Amino acid sequence: MTEWTAKASVLIEALPYIKRFAGKTMVIKYGGSAMGGPFEQVILDIIWLKQAGIRPVVVHGGGKEISAMLNRLQIESKFVDGLRVTDSETMNVVEMVLGGSVNKRIAATFHKHGVPAVGLTGVDGGLLRVKQKRAELGLVGEVVEVSHSLLDQMLNASVVPIIAPIGVDDNGVRYNVNADSAAGAIAGALQAEKLVLLTDVPGIMCETQDGKQVLNQITPAGIQQLMEEGQITGGMVPKVEACLQALAAGAKHVHILNGEEPHALLLEVFTDQGIGTMVIGGESA
Amino acid sequence: MTEWTAKASVLIEALPYIKRFAGKTMVIKYGGSAMGGPFEQVILDIIWLKQAGIRPVVVHGGGKEISAMLNRLQIESKFVDGLRVTDSETMNVVEMVLGGSVNKRIAATFHKHGVPAVGLTGVDGGLLRVKQKRAELGLVGEVVEVSHSLLDQMLNASVVPIIAPIGVDDNGVRYNVNADSAAGAIAGALQAEKLVLLTDVPGIMCETQDGKQVLNQITPAGIQQLMEEGQITGGMVPKVEACLQALAAGAKHVHILNGEEPHALLLEVFTDQGIGTMVIGGESA
Amino acid sequence: MTEWTAKASVLIEALPYIKRFAGKTMVIKYGGSAMGGPFEQVILDIIWLKQAGIRPVVVHGGGKEISAMLNRLQIESKFVDGLRVTDSETMNVVEMVLGGSVNKRIAATFHKHGVPAVGLTGVDGGLLRVKQKRAELGLVGEVVEVSHSLLDQMLNASVVPIIAPIGVDDNGVRYNVNADSAAGAIAGALQAEKLVLLTDVPGIMCETQDGKQVLNQITPAGIQQLMEEGQITGGMVPKVEACLQALAAGAKHVHILNGEEPHALLLEVFTDQGIGTMVIGGESA
Amino acid sequence: MTEWTAKASVLIEALPYIKRFAGKTMVIKYGGSAMGGPFEQVILDIIWLKQAGIRPVVVHGGGKEISAMLNRLQIESKFVDGLRVTDSETMNVVEMVLGGSVNKRIAATFHKHGVPAVGLTGVDGGLLRVKQKRAELGLVGEVVEVSHSLLDQMLNASVVPIIAPIGVDDNGVRYNVNADSAAGAIAGALQAEKLVLLTDVPGIMCETQDGKQVLNQITPAGIQQLMEEGQITGGMVPKVEACLQALAAGAKHVHILNGEEPHALLLEVFTDQGIGTMVIGGESA
Amino acid sequence: MTEWTAKASVLIEALPYIKRFAGKTMVIKYGGSAMGGPFEQVILDIIWLKQAGIRPVVVHGGGKEISAMLNRLQIESKFVDGLRVTDSETMNVVEMVLGGSVNKRIAATFHKHGVPAVGLTGVDGGLLRVKQKRAELGLVGEVVEVSHSLLDQMLNASVVPIIAPIGVDDNGVRYNVNADSAAGAIAGALQAEKLVLLTDVPGIMCETQDGKQVLNQITPAGIQQLMEEGQITGGMVPKVEACLQALAAGAKHVHILNGEEPHALLLEVFTDQGIGTMVIGGESA
Amino acid sequence: MTEWTAKASVLIEALPYIKRFAGKTMVIKYGGSAMGGPFEQVILDIIWLKQAGIRPVVVHGGGKEISAMLNRLQIESKFVDGLRVTDSETMNVVEMVLGGSVNKRIAATFHKHGVPAVGLTGVDGGLLRVKQKRAELGLVGEVVEVSHSLLDQMLNASVVPIIAPIGVDDNGVRYNVNADSAAGAIAGALQAEKLVLLTDVPGIMCETQDGKQVLNQITPAGIQQLMEEGQITGGMVPKVEACLQALAAGAKHVHILNGEEPHALLLEVFTDQGIGTMVIGGESA
Repeated sequence: MTEWTAKASVLIEALPYIKRFAGKTMVIKYGGSAMGGPFEQVILDIIWLKQAGIRPVVVHGGGKEISAMLNRLQIESKFVDGLRVTDSETMNVVEMVLGGSVNKRIAATFHKHGVPAVGLTGVDGGLLRVKQKRAELGLVGEVVEVSHSLLDQMLNASVVPIIAPIGVDDNGVRYNVNADSAAGAIAGALQAEKLVLLTDVPGIMCETQDGKQVLNQITPAGIQQLMEEGQITGGMVPKVEACLQALAAGAKHVHILNGEEPHALLLEVFTDQGIGTMVIGGESA
Repeated sequence: MTEWTAKASVLIEALPYIKRFAGKTMVIKYGGSAMGGPFEQVILDIIWLKQAGIRPVVVHGGGKEISAMLNRLQIESKFVDGLRVTDSETMNVVEMVLGGSVNKRIAATFHKHGVPAVGLTGVDGGLLRVKQKRAELGLVGEVVEVSHSLLDQMLNASVVPIIAPIGVDDNGVRYNVNADSAAGAIAGALQAEKLVLLTDVPGIMCETQDGKQVLNQITPAGIQQLMEEGQITGGMVPKVEACLQALAAGAKHVHILNGEEPHALLLEVFTDQGIGTMVIGGESA
Repeated sequence: MTEWTAKASVLIEALPYIKRFAGKTMVIKYGGSAMGGPFEQVILDIIWLKQAGIRPVVVHGGGKEISAMLNRLQIESKFVDGLRVTDSETMNVVEMVLGGSVNKRIAATFHKHGVPAVGLTGVDGGLLRVKQKRAELGLVGEVVEVSHSLLDQMLNASVVPIIAPIGVDDNGVRYNVNADSAAGAIAGALQAEKLVLLTDVPGIMCETQDGKQVLNQITPAGIQQLMEEGQITGGMVPKVEACLQALAAGAKHVHILNGEEPHALLLEVFTDQGIGTMVIGGESA
Repeated sequence: MTEWTAKASVLIEALPYIKRFAGKTMVIKYGGSAMGGPFEQVILDIIWLKQAGIRPVVVHGGGKEISAMLNRLQIESKFVDGLRVTDSETMNVVEMVLGGSVNKRIAATFHKHGVPAVGLTGVDGGLLRVKQKRAELGLVGEVVEVSHSLLDQMLNASVVPIIAPIGVDDNGVRYNVNADSAAGAIAGALQAEKLVLLTDVPGIMCETQDGKQVLNQITPAGIQQLMEEGQITGGMVPKVEACLQALAAGAKHVHILNGEEPHALLLEVFTDQGIGTMVIGGESA
Repeated sequence: MTEWTAKASVLIEALPYIKRFAGKTMVIKYGGSAMGGPFEQVILDIIWLKQAGIRPVVVHGGGKEISAMLNRLQIESKFVDGLRVTDSETMNVVEMVLGGSVNKRIAATFHKHGVPAVGLTGVDGGLLRVKQKRAELGLVGEVVEVSHSLLDQMLNASVVPIIAPIGVDDNGVRYNVNADSAAGAIAGALQAEKLVLLTDVPGIMCETQDGKQVLNQITPAGIQQLMEEGQITGGMVPKVEACLQALAAGAKHVHILNGEEPHALLLEVFTDQGIGTMVIGGESA
Repeated sequence: MTEWTAKASVLIEALPYIKRFAGKTMVIKYGGSAMGGPFEQVILDIIWLKQAGIRPVVVHGGGKEISAMLNRLQIESKFVDGLRVTDSETMNVVEMVLGGSVNKRIAATFHKHGVPAVGLTGVDGGLLRVKQKRAELGLVGEVVEVSHSLLDQMLNASVVPIIAPIGVDDNGVRYNVNADSAAGAIAGALQAEKLVLLTDVPGIMCETQDGKQVLNQITPAGIQQLMEEGQITGGMVPKVEACLQALAAGAKHVHILNGEEPHALLLEVFTDQGIGTMVIGGESA
């Protein structure tokens, strides 16, 4: 009977979330670094979200695989301020790896579990309209507009969109886009209930008296302060910028989770438990 | 006034076709070999069809680019009965080149001309469900079922689907599919008004007293006879098989055109002129 | 982390049920005898079902309260074969107590928790069309037809129907109907996914070598046999008859549970655990 | 032929009303006192309105039957300022008699004539949200809000709602509501074409030189004046207040008729003849 | 009060008819001979039908006016078997008088009373497709098919169609059609509730022992018998043939009335009174 | 191959127009004077427009035929300021000839080519509500309001409306309306893409140094100037007034063409070629 009560209490804890999120859109950014973890299990967790009536949208990275292919093709990698300079030959590799290989592998995994999914790049349906970020970076783009009608259609048809972060300008030229930024822009455009960044770190860290700790919650103002204090650096910078962008554009909540922990996504969505860091749209830190 | 009359007569010739084909679906197989011709002009011709109210679906090949990439990666090509043996490494290249590179280049060209297009492989939405063709060929697939609901949605939303001929089985494994066969299966599933194969030859050729000549029309029975006589060989075989499959499955008309001739597609669709070879669903040759 | 895993496993156990039952109709017969248990908690469990997307329909009894009111009004109770003889004065009391008092108390409890519910008797919308069961019993009715369009409307409007088991004939005369029978007829008419009878016993009992035990599953044939063996008697008879009727008319599954056990309903619906007795539409016992 | 002409002239008189009122909502308050008259005939007249395409809503009283039941149960009646003090035991009787007995008798009479009707109290669907009127009166409520979506649905489904004047607060507590007030609030909320109060008096009376006379028409201002002159007293006060409330809230016309006169309702609605008193939304008396 | 009761009884007599006929289609053939009677009053009676929710369709004649115009233009009238031989010049006059003059005068009278009406001939929308009846009669047509989609649209848009009995063949040639036949064909095609022929005689007459009398009811078989007995002759022949045709094609009831009697149409439709002759779809006379 | 290229270039020239005009409404005024030209060919050109997805509305004249019939009936024609004085007898002839004869001949020609068309006068559906223009002219009307809901319905049902320029006032009196004015008012009310006046002159002429020349384009201001200079006179005055009225009321472009030139309509609509005079809504001449 104790077991029964325990089960019932999990259900009673979960049901309000199930109700609240039914029919809502969640954008999940599945980072290339997190892909080192339990790949198929993460896809299954996203499938559970869908079972519960949520409309997931997946944006993925793939940096490691791009690097590996560039190496094989003996194309040299140049960097400016830590950003990869993307010439036309590099871009072709980015497009093949992200749009042809990683993207379709994710779609095929959904398919294997009987869930219809469609892999897209930002070229398709003009989904991600971009402009060049900085001339010296070559074909690195910055999202100017998200044409989400195609996504709306797919979500209405109960299909999971899988998006590779490649954008296009009005001349049909394709650009490499940071996956976190793409996810933030898409979450904003869809007025998503949640944007979840699945990474390989447990959340936003902060130096405290008790050492480095994960922040449970933080506001945009708090992020601003941490950045000024130099506590947010490196790959975490585009992540928090994507969070701020998504919130500003209309997404309701943003989370940074460690995608390598088992079922982190499921527990974050359906339990009262705080996992990782939630960025909330408020003013006080 | 003569010019006026000439113009009016072209219009009067075209209008019944415009009316007849408005809202109808046409599957255009744009072969890798034909891509050596006027690439952007062919895309523009397809855009004209769309302007006139037709719903085009593009299936593309890309054999030359696959071979080039395999060479660069020093992956050896093996053939059995003229068919490429596709191991897992080769398949990854096929998927990257067709799904990531060629497919998106076509989509981006539509985008450049303001026409929404979405690039897909047969993995997306489980579009092309396949089984292995022959064990010795490895990951070469044969279409078992076309799940066209995703295409229907896109066509209804006035989007041009661009399809790379890659299929998937129920375990999420991807297979290389002959582009002509894929186009034939899709045309059949969509009950297309027309399947047009854009190739680099003027049509089905036949040895006559006056030498080799293009046949204007041929029936399935006629094709059967030519095959038995050994007049149809090589790359033309999968083409005529795709024609027969499409007709059997419900497509109304099938055409084989030389995609390198300027505006061949446009003239075939909108004028009384016979261009290339039309395969018609009849009995007498 | 162990707690996390436990939680996740309850969720992963529940989600397929949540998906399977979303939008499905369940008829819950809440018996007068079970009302002695945790009244408001049972209503809350029904509300959880609704949160999870299920469409509950409540049919209630109220025998104890009827007897109490008859006593207060000094109306004598006569019985034939254990069935209450219902004259016109008694019927008026039945109608007042079931339709005016119990029914509205249930509706008001839903209302208190913010869930729209509508209390009905079988008179409303001609919901339960009945004929006299046996002349000597007076105004005791047997359901002839269920006019469920009103229920359909309410379910579509996300309203919970609360039904007091009173029927009407074509002359507008009202009859007392056994609540189990009414629930069975309604479950059949609605082609309900489940009919759940909440009683004050743990299920259908059977004499075994190890003494009296609750049967987890039984088929209609098995019930037949137990009845012939005299193992099913008294108030359990109309219950199992209602089960058989509901299955025959199109309900998919029928359950008999002890409504006094905490969350029995919730656990039965959302976990793999067998609670009470399930009557399944099969042939072998 | 004279008879023909007479008939045709009644039809020609009626047809514009039939057209004007087709699809319009009328709230008919059928008072407990009027129920002493030709009960079934009044129901039939309401059915005629429905035949002619009008959407009737019935609000009923039942004071006499409540008093009789309280007597039988030896529950003492206390009054303050002529209003019944309603403790919890009395409220239970009110709910049983109005909601269980009178309400269902009316619904059953409609059913007998083949017209679908549904009996409700203000608890159902949270129809009448109330607050306590005055502490000393106990469970006597005053309508705060009418949640009419349930009524709209029923009217759209061609069902006649029969409403017992019982309200509910946010805690699920039920209150006794004056039937005239309830009818006025409902008529206002539904933006009814007409509110008709069927009483046992011929209309609003006024002392004139020729003695007491029924007023054909009166404005809100005129009512105000009569009340100040002390010409409107007793049970007529809640009636005229209900009229004023209904008009203020959006009902178009309000009528007070003698429900005991044969077909008064029918003639009021479909002929040029003035019957009873019409309260019109104007300024001059 | 007696007057009240009388009025109420007319209403109670009429309401079931109003309900039964609401939304039903009635075809009224308004004959040229009947037009000598109270023209505007007949139009008003048709407007009353519309007020009551009926969907009237008017088919009119105009023989007298055609003859007058032929006379003015000194075009000689030739007859074969009592039927006017219609050459091309005569046909032009028929088309002008029926389609240009009578038809628009009726439409304008509806317009004057605020009722939208549209005048058509059988040419419009290919409404009456005809073939030549007999070569020697010239342009006299016989209805082959009624294309009623245009009428359906108008009726759905609450517009009264006014139809002049002119037909067209597939070459665009127009023919004169007997108005009774046209009305019968249209009533059949629309599956009309009633076809009413407004003529200048009181109905189908029959020689009895008491002299010539109007038959209240007659079946197709009865008509057959009267025709064989030679009791139905002259202009009554096409009328009864139109009745039989309408019934055979799906019209429910057919009536022959004297359109010169005041309000004959209104009384026929809305009272229990039998006026004129009703032809019913039965077997015994 | 040259012929092919020429054909393709006509198509490529036409397709943007076909796309731009698909679903757009064009009002074509087919003047009585232009009817002397290739009657059936003009109808065929309008049918081509329809084939291409345009929604044509035809407004026609018929002055010559009216005069001929008045002569035959020996009704004298009187004129004031060049306008025909229309007494009631004349009006009857106008109505018969325009509404009964010309209108139906056009409708029948469409019918002959399998295109559904409906002939109307402005009486039908109260399409053209008019007032008297000047008392001395008698029944000559000026359009006050266009009730285009009937036209919208027909256009949505893919039917071509053919309109005779006769109007009606609120008393049901019919008036003769200038066909150009009627066409202008209708084009404005329908917010037509184009109003095309098919006349027997090549366009608006202007005296230049090289003699009288057709103006390709002109603005309203330019028209004003030409009128002040006395260069626009006679029958061209109502035409240019109709142009100005149509533009002011919301029509997008207005054209004056010579309807006697073969396919002028077709070439104007589908080619880059300027034919006749286009009046554009601008300021500079």
